[in-house]
Amino acid sequence: MRRRSLAQLPCPIARGADQLGDTWTLVLLREVWLGKHRFAEFQRALPIAPNMLTRRLADLRRHGLLEARKAARHSEYHLTPKGEDTLPVLLSLATWANRWLSPRGEVLTIVDGRSQKRLEPVVVDARSGRRLVAGQVGVMAGPGAPKAVRTKLNTPVLFKPAPEQRKST
Amino acid sequence: MRRRSLAQLPCPIARGADQLGDTWTLVLLREVWLGKHRFAEFQRALPIAPNMLTRRLADLRRHGLLEARKAARHSEYHLTPKGEDTLPVLLSLATWANRWLSPRGEVLTIVDGRSQKRLEPVVVDARSGRRLVAGQVGVMAGPGAPKAVRTKLNTPVLFKPAPEQRKST
Repeated sequence: MRRRSLAQLPCPIARGADQLGDTWTLVLLREVWLGKHRFAEFQRALPIAPNMLTRRLADLRRHGLLEARKAARHSEYHLTPKGEDTLPVLLSLATWANRWLSPRGEVLTIVDGRSQKRLEPVVVDARSGRRLVAGQVGVMAGPGAPKAVRTKLNTPVLFKPAPEQRKST
Repeated sequence: MRRRSLAQLPCPIARGADQLGDTWTLVLLREVWLGKHRFAEFQRALPIAPNMLTRRLADLRRHGLLEARKAARHSEYHLTPKGEDTLPVLLSLATWANRWLSPRGEVLTIVDGRSQKRLEPVVVDARSGRRLVAGQVGVMAGPGAPKAVRTKLNTPVLFKPAPEQRKST
């Protein structure tokens, strides 16, 4: 119920959150990205109950993020193209967490695979290369918008930073 | 229990997922970003039960993503600097969802606020401007890594794309 209603909200953040907005889903994607592919490997690596792991892997397959392939003795879970396209989400999330949730310094640093130099992931517009920052980027009705959205969002609504807190009231 | 154990995993994706890996959390951040600030506004905009809304707002405040400010008659929720730093995560998520979860075309398009032109958010390295792609970017132990992680991840582990499926077995 809840998930269905969110999946159908006319907003890509809600729709994206419906499939990726789950702790275990994101952690399992990380595991597969970084080279783990089997049920037993996930169980060894994560503090997850088997029934929860089974359920999350089923969700990931149902949503087309992972596919199961027959290997020698076990099934192996691999990323689909849709799953592979989550890399920017995971890199943005990791960058945010490195900044805000690593009080004793970064535990894992995002690096260039060859030079091993630290990278600083930022989101830019592919065409102009310009950094996308609050107050300058927004959303407006797209070609797939239902009529109500087209009427309401025919001009951009910006992602606005918080107003300065007034010093006195 | 579960959330605590994830918050302490030595991985920024797990730590980030612990605070942002929740459907309602992401949708509420979007609401605040796009100009809604009051409990009643969230309720009107979203198919969310009041007790769930109360809980999620409390989580967002406890994690330091939103702060409550006293306004004329109601409290208003505003982004903190940590909350404002989620923009790249939301833009990456929306971009992914626009690509994979909009079968009838983008419902909301990410645009430049002034020109109203469509933007194409991608993740690059801030210094070089180079696109971060699978197979070339990875993680390795950072300055805050515990000893076990430093030993295990003293060279990069790459975010690897799925191997080509063999045609026959």
